[in-house]
Amino acid sequence: MNVMFIKTKNKDFNKFFRKVVQRGSDIDPKIEKSVLEIIKKVKKEGDKALLFYTNKFDRVNLSPDEIKVSPDEFVTALDEIPPENFALIKRVAKRIYDYHHLQIEDSFLKKKDGEGLGMLIRPIEKVGIYVPGGSAPYPSTVLMNAIPAQIAGVQKIIMVTPYGKDGVNPYLLAAAKIAGIEDVFKVGGAQAIAAMAYGTETIPKVDKIVGPGNIYVATAKKLVYGNVAIDIFAGPSEIVIISDGKASSEIVAADILSQAEHDKEATCILITPDEKFAGEVKKSIDNQFISLQRKEIVKASIEKNGIIIISRDIKEAIELANEIAPEHLELALMKPNRWLKDIKNAGAIFLGNNSPATLGDYIAGPNHVLPTGSAARFSSPLGVYDFIKRTNTVSFSPRALRKWGEDVIRFALIEGLDAHANTVSIRLKDR
Amino acid sequence: MNVMFIKTKNKDFNKFFRKVVQRGSDIDPKIEKSVLEIIKKVKKEGDKALLFYTNKFDRVNLSPDEIKVSPDEFVTALDEIPPENFALIKRVAKRIYDYHHLQIEDSFLKKKDGEGLGMLIRPIEKVGIYVPGGSAPYPSTVLMNAIPAQIAGVQKIIMVTPYGKDGVNPYLLAAAKIAGIEDVFKVGGAQAIAAMAYGTETIPKVDKIVGPGNIYVATAKKLVYGNVAIDIFAGPSEIVIISDGKASSEIVAADILSQAEHDKEATCILITPDEKFAGEVKKSIDNQFISLQRKEIVKASIEKNGIIIISRDIKEAIELANEIAPEHLELALMKPNRWLKDIKNAGAIFLGNNSPATLGDYIAGPNHVLPTGSAARFSSPLGVYDFIKRTNTVSFSPRALRKWGEDVIRFALIEGLDAHANTVSIRLKDR
Repeated sequence: MNVMFIKTKNKDFNKFFRKVVQRGSDIDPKIEKSVLEIIKKVKKEGDKALLFYTNKFDRVNLSPDEIKVSPDEFVTALDEIPPENFALIKRVAKRIYDYHHLQIEDSFLKKKDGEGLGMLIRPIEKVGIYVPGGSAPYPSTVLMNAIPAQIAGVQKIIMVTPYGKDGVNPYLLAAAKIAGIEDVFKVGGAQAIAAMAYGTETIPKVDKIVGPGNIYVATAKKLVYGNVAIDIFAGPSEIVIISDGKASSEIVAADILSQAEHDKEATCILITPDEKFAGEVKKSIDNQFISLQRKEIVKASIEKNGIIIISRDIKEAIELANEIAPEHLELALMKPNRWLKDIKNAGAIFLGNNSPATLGDYIAGPNHVLPTGSAARFSSPLGVYDFIKRTNTVSFSPRALRKWGEDVIRFALIEGLDAHANTVSIRLKDR
Repeated sequence: MNVMFIKTKNKDFNKFFRKVVQRGSDIDPKIEKSVLEIIKKVKKEGDKALLFYTNKFDRVNLSPDEIKVSPDEFVTALDEIPPENFALIKRVAKRIYDYHHLQIEDSFLKKKDGEGLGMLIRPIEKVGIYVPGGSAPYPSTVLMNAIPAQIAGVQKIIMVTPYGKDGVNPYLLAAAKIAGIEDVFKVGGAQAIAAMAYGTETIPKVDKIVGPGNIYVATAKKLVYGNVAIDIFAGPSEIVIISDGKASSEIVAADILSQAEHDKEATCILITPDEKFAGEVKKSIDNQFISLQRKEIVKASIEKNGIIIISRDIKEAIELANEIAPEHLELALMKPNRWLKDIKNAGAIFLGNNSPATLGDYIAGPNHVLPTGSAARFSSPLGVYDFIKRTNTVSFSPRALRKWGEDVIRFALIEGLDAHANTVSIRLKDR
């Protein structure tokens, strides 16, 4: 396969690299227009419009009372799954629970000199999770989105997923069951996002919508944002692997291919100072490719966004990775911990040769919903903190108000706000 | 003044109340179009376009080397401020520092059975603060936005503020100085947002933009979102006061007027079961109004969005407040703490009759940048957590990989991703 090879000392490297860094994509105005129409119609007509679009786009024929997955459908689905696979999903869920429990934050209240200053942490009340359907459904998506919400204490978690010709995939329902979701609706696309943002007769209005989706889903989320909260924009998958050339080239090649199989638009970058090793990785990519199932996707991804960069040294490789701010960063180094402090921007870091990014997709425990498109510069993996909100609290005693009252009045007057000043002076005047 | 009076037991209350709850506003497509043009031009032409729009809209005549506030201009500004006012701003800054220090979160690393699972907390590298200019500049805006960023460890904080005919207000520069901001630029509007989002010759590109602004600024922030992070959308100010009628009606009236003086679009709501008390508050609003400076703004706000709701009891008042999810919530109650646990949605809560919301604007310490337009359902006051981002870390030993490897392979195959499975099997095969 044709993998792009480039050295940092090439004179045109900087120009090339700037394009890699600026890989974020804008919303298509044509798509925006059609999505806006769908949203308006669902907002106005509720279930009627939701079913109209669902039956049209998903080529199904649902009636209003079939929108929600019934208890019977849950039972049938769970029966279809081999018990050892059900147990596996439970084991994975347990590990995700254990990690995310570490993210719980506490409210605080500091009392001193007649003042009480606090911060209350409360769960968001209602959350909707979008789970893509299609041929390869991902039960891990259900777990990774639902479990942090459960730990945060969200009261109502609902899930939507498109209804294909074979119904809802049983693994998605198994994961929903394990993650404690009872309300699953067989709808997808922009119409499902609109339904959760505004509510319909069947689907409750939520406060926040999370979960990945295609460009129509992503556009719909962006358009309803403000009325409800949304999670980070999930662009195509990305990996940057920094290698010192000391591990097996087969391992590095396998990790590149695994990221490439996600999406034709996935970005896979190896940065290494070892040119000979880079050549071996390239060869191994070709060798391993032959036996893969998703060849078409892998080939498209590797040939479009597969890049091997030959850096001066590991230090330069780390600097480039910081500029890329990748979703996944593998430090395929003998002493990865030595470099950890220098990493500024990455969604998740995998340390050493026994920690492929695949661990993070499933079993490690940390969330696999990670910032893409260089958003790791300013945003975080999905976590418990995404399902809570904070409220400041202020409680002053009469004495504390007397102590600070004059300062408040003076500051308000500096800002030209005499009605603000009055709120304090009126309280102080009778004392 | 004409304050709206309504009882919850009225038959048309629900219809009326739904409008209050759905007070969020959409972006104007006309404004969006003109803002998009400004952004494109600044992105393409840098300082040239920035100055073109600045000189046009702000009616000034800046040259490129005057965009940045010079050290001399800082000195001159600080000389203009009475020393006691400078000391006051410093005292206020100290209190904001002290409160926000309580919000610092720690990275964690959990090691067990050959696994290391962690979460790194790192500051966002570069932050830009937008500070509105105009006739009544708010030094508190500078402090409230800059101090949490400083505590988070942001390396570079820049500030933009429009250059009026009298130059940059000295209080804004004093606050910048106290908050440790050295780079202040005399630009505002959508063009300043575009400059910070994409960078120009003079203004560095930042990773996150915070701070309030008019509709052009807010629209520009929404349009550059994704390329940079932005803070919550700051709509018109809001207060809900829940009163048991036991405090002085003058106090409640003063607090309503203080919120109204912010903005003609501000929303001020009193909810009380005591109808007689409500009438006294209304009378006191009229009495106090006479002596206020910003009469035009106050009158517009009160007559448009001033509402007194007579509820059945305090419990119902709290339920209504949760649905409104106000920016500021005052519990003007004799025993406010009794009700605290029932409040689900509010930006900041002020407890008891000695804690006017004005305390929170300045001296209490908690941030005054709060979610408006019912966004308190899903978002938080500005805080240190807005200036950090998290990175997950995963480190498995060979033994841990052996232990969990089969599970990972099986899960990957359930999801139909054989290249994912390969990343583990290739590591296990040589052992």
